[in-house]
Amino acid sequence: MVKKITPRAEDFSEWYQDVIDAAELAEHSSVKGSMVIKPFGYAIWENIQKELDFQFKETGVENAYFPLFIPESFLKREAEHVEGFSPELAVVTIAGGKPLAENLVVRPTSETIIYDTFKNWISSHRDLPLLINQWANVVRWEMRPRMFLRTTEFLWQEGHTAHATYAEADLRARGMLEIYKKFSEDFLAISVLDGIKSDRERFAGADKTYTIEAVMQDGKALQFATSHNLAQNFSKAFGIKFSNKESKEEYVYQTSWGLSTRSIGGLIMSHSDDNGLVLPPKIAPIQVVILPIYGSDEEKKKKVLDKCKEIEDKLRSTEMIRVKTDLTEKNFGEKSFFWEKRGVPVRIEIGPKDIENNAYIVNTRQTLEKEQIGDSALIDYVLGRLEKVQNNLLHNSYTRTYLNIKTVDNYEDFKKEIEANNSVFAFWDGDSKIEERIKEETKATTRCIPFRFLNEKGSSLISGKEGSKVLFSKAY
Amino acid sequence: MVKKITPRAEDFSEWYQDVIDAAELAEHSSVKGSMVIKPFGYAIWENIQKELDFQFKETGVENAYFPLFIPESFLKREAEHVEGFSPELAVVTIAGGKPLAENLVVRPTSETIIYDTFKNWISSHRDLPLLINQWANVVRWEMRPRMFLRTTEFLWQEGHTAHATYAEADLRARGMLEIYKKFSEDFLAISVLDGIKSDRERFAGADKTYTIEAVMQDGKALQFATSHNLAQNFSKAFGIKFSNKESKEEYVYQTSWGLSTRSIGGLIMSHSDDNGLVLPPKIAPIQVVILPIYGSDEEKKKKVLDKCKEIEDKLRSTEMIRVKTDLTEKNFGEKSFFWEKRGVPVRIEIGPKDIENNAYIVNTRQTLEKEQIGDSALIDYVLGRLEKVQNNLLHNSYTRTYLNIKTVDNYEDFKKEIEANNSVFAFWDGDSKIEERIKEETKATTRCIPFRFLNEKGSSLISGKEGSKVLFSKAY
Repeated sequence: MVKKITPRAEDFSEWYQDVIDAAELAEHSSVKGSMVIKPFGYAIWENIQKELDFQFKETGVENAYFPLFIPESFLKREAEHVEGFSPELAVVTIAGGKPLAENLVVRPTSETIIYDTFKNWISSHRDLPLLINQWANVVRWEMRPRMFLRTTEFLWQEGHTAHATYAEADLRARGMLEIYKKFSEDFLAISVLDGIKSDRERFAGADKTYTIEAVMQDGKALQFATSHNLAQNFSKAFGIKFSNKESKEEYVYQTSWGLSTRSIGGLIMSHSDDNGLVLPPKIAPIQVVILPIYGSDEEKKKKVLDKCKEIEDKLRSTEMIRVKTDLTEKNFGEKSFFWEKRGVPVRIEIGPKDIENNAYIVNTRQTLEKEQIGDSALIDYVLGRLEKVQNNLLHNSYTRTYLNIKTVDNYEDFKKEIEANNSVFAFWDGDSKIEERIKEETKATTRCIPFRFLNEKGSSLISGKEGSKVLFSKAY
Repeated sequence: MVKKITPRAEDFSEWYQDVIDAAELAEHSSVKGSMVIKPFGYAIWENIQKELDFQFKETGVENAYFPLFIPESFLKREAEHVEGFSPELAVVTIAGGKPLAENLVVRPTSETIIYDTFKNWISSHRDLPLLINQWANVVRWEMRPRMFLRTTEFLWQEGHTAHATYAEADLRARGMLEIYKKFSEDFLAISVLDGIKSDRERFAGADKTYTIEAVMQDGKALQFATSHNLAQNFSKAFGIKFSNKESKEEYVYQTSWGLSTRSIGGLIMSHSDDNGLVLPPKIAPIQVVILPIYGSDEEKKKKVLDKCKEIEDKLRSTEMIRVKTDLTEKNFGEKSFFWEKRGVPVRIEIGPKDIENNAYIVNTRQTLEKEQIGDSALIDYVLGRLEKVQNNLLHNSYTRTYLNIKTVDNYEDFKKEIEANNSVFAFWDGDSKIEERIKEETKATTRCIPFRFLNEKGSSLISGKEGSKVLFSKAY
């Protein structure tokens, strides 16, 4: 259980797994590729759900639920879509004791089964826009599983909308990306680059894929969430038509967008350190933990516990802080260790001496600072620390994602940087063959053309032709 | 779309389907046996989730997430368990393009995969009790699907706990049943009989199954939720041991308990009427709807909408009511009809004349009453109606479940009552052969031995031996 965490500099991927183990976020299951999300890891997911769900609903989105199983023939209706997902499918061939007449695929994503339903829900422009979201599990068979980042089964939300015009669908796709971006920055303290995917990296079946990409501490990029403008690709395949205001029949324009439990992998790799998990306060299941210290003296114990209760109540009721007093039988050292590994932002230590001194030790997990704070200043200090940690983490992430990425102008420098696991900006002319060659030679892929660089042009890697400024990186 | 609802007296099961269609709660999907839960139906499930999740957590339960897939061999470890579930399984035999070495079953329930994990989480009595819940989808292949009541895939929560003693496990199993009972009565306004299942009706692998059963408007019973004392049946099969306080190794004692989307089926069949869905206010996604009435006069329209806004704000902000003003382009009749079919408890009509009169028409869905209420009394009246409806519905359900069930003392009367679809109390000596014969001859099953009758003894059906007082019914 108490295994030392491998330092990041020594082996980043060992470190990642050690942080997860030490924080008890998840573990491998007996089903290859599928993980068990343990209570502390799931509590982070619940906070992500709660906030995103609220934000989706504010924009008029409603939740619904669609079948887990998809008839195999449905996937084949959109040619690119089936090609993209075929290698990853899990297939039910036997049910109720008998071979099935048509095999059922366990959903890898739900465009096809949902749009087969949408065609019954839409007939007139008055039925549009249709704005639906689903919280669900999906399955994509994974040969090289990695906790949270790549697992055979994962949890996510998938939004699916239908609109009367291409422009409105595009606005929705861009708008949802903006919600993901703000959520990543404001709640997860992860700075992201928003942009558009190359044709090669586009979602199978999309007209345009928008993405937010974040740079991890090792320099590699992680795709955080994507939002697709599907144009009429699926509505034509599934016959989703509406009569427009001029009573003319037309196929709807669609979007889909998703964020999954892989975001927790990004959360870990963005903020944690060699001591274990570090959590941004806004997403932490527990923001402040109070550690009572007492010996066998019953009177002193009572005083300590009363003080803990007083501070806990103030933080919870007045300040709406998620706070917990650790009343387990563990000793003080074990308790400190336990909460440090879980990345709880602030720990307050309260013992008989502290009560006499009218001042308490406050530990800040992210900065590793330890300060003695007088009773009257305590609550404000704790609130200040939470704010500071949230800001620090976002700042660090911003530095990685916006300030420290180098722009290289030749393939030699490019290879050197990628070799060192860095993300880089480089110009690229849009030629898929060059993209493919770069991937083969360096393992780096185009992550996106950032929106902020859409107007910057320069001489492309390899071809020398005019190209756009693109984020390249090895990616998780 | 606007199809007439079949009256209950004419065909109860047609009526049930018509109510679901008219309220747009769910619909059949292209995957036989799997339904689509539409936004209004899903919003009811979200309210159920929110309340139950809160209550579970209050008792120390934490959420986690376990794999969808279960190795076929796991199910076989508990002999009764595999026998109970085998006929209903959906089996994945192909994944990632290849036949699997071991087939994977899509979870019909998660005892086996969760307890395979629990064995790693538990080693000492200090790890106990372990209190875990999972919100998930499960699959049981269904040949005769029925919306909400019997579908191949359904949504549920499944709680799984481990304890140091049989008594503690039993207390937890009974305690969770009590939570379900209070939830059914206080939120869903459904009166339930709590009791214990016969050996034949026990969960496959349980030592004891506790259940709450409700009587629907047609007289048949619906199993609402169950809670199982698993004793050491699974811990022995999966090797879940702990060292007790005397440092002796022992197998843990376990419980599992669940409530599913079938409860929405019960909600519909308990309260709705020939006009469509009727919802208890506490679980209704929308409790009050405001219907503005205006013509083309812009000034009058503004006055009406301002008044709607004022009342909406008062109800929402001051009284925490889930309220909505219907601003769609539909005409007044269409709007009324729309919300009536959805069972929204209270509708307020606001037009220019009402504003002049300083009084508004309030419709109560459940009682079908329509009253004119003065402006100053409006908010209190609405709140009063919500309370009254909640009470009325519970009272009606209580009458069915507690007052109107007849106790019969001979098999002839028994058959007559069951033939008429009534639930009955009858004495039964516990002999499974008699239970089996009754089922074959009448389709009635033992629903439970109600706790309240545990001490009542009488002459058993058929055998005449001493027996317990049992709820018999045809069941959904």
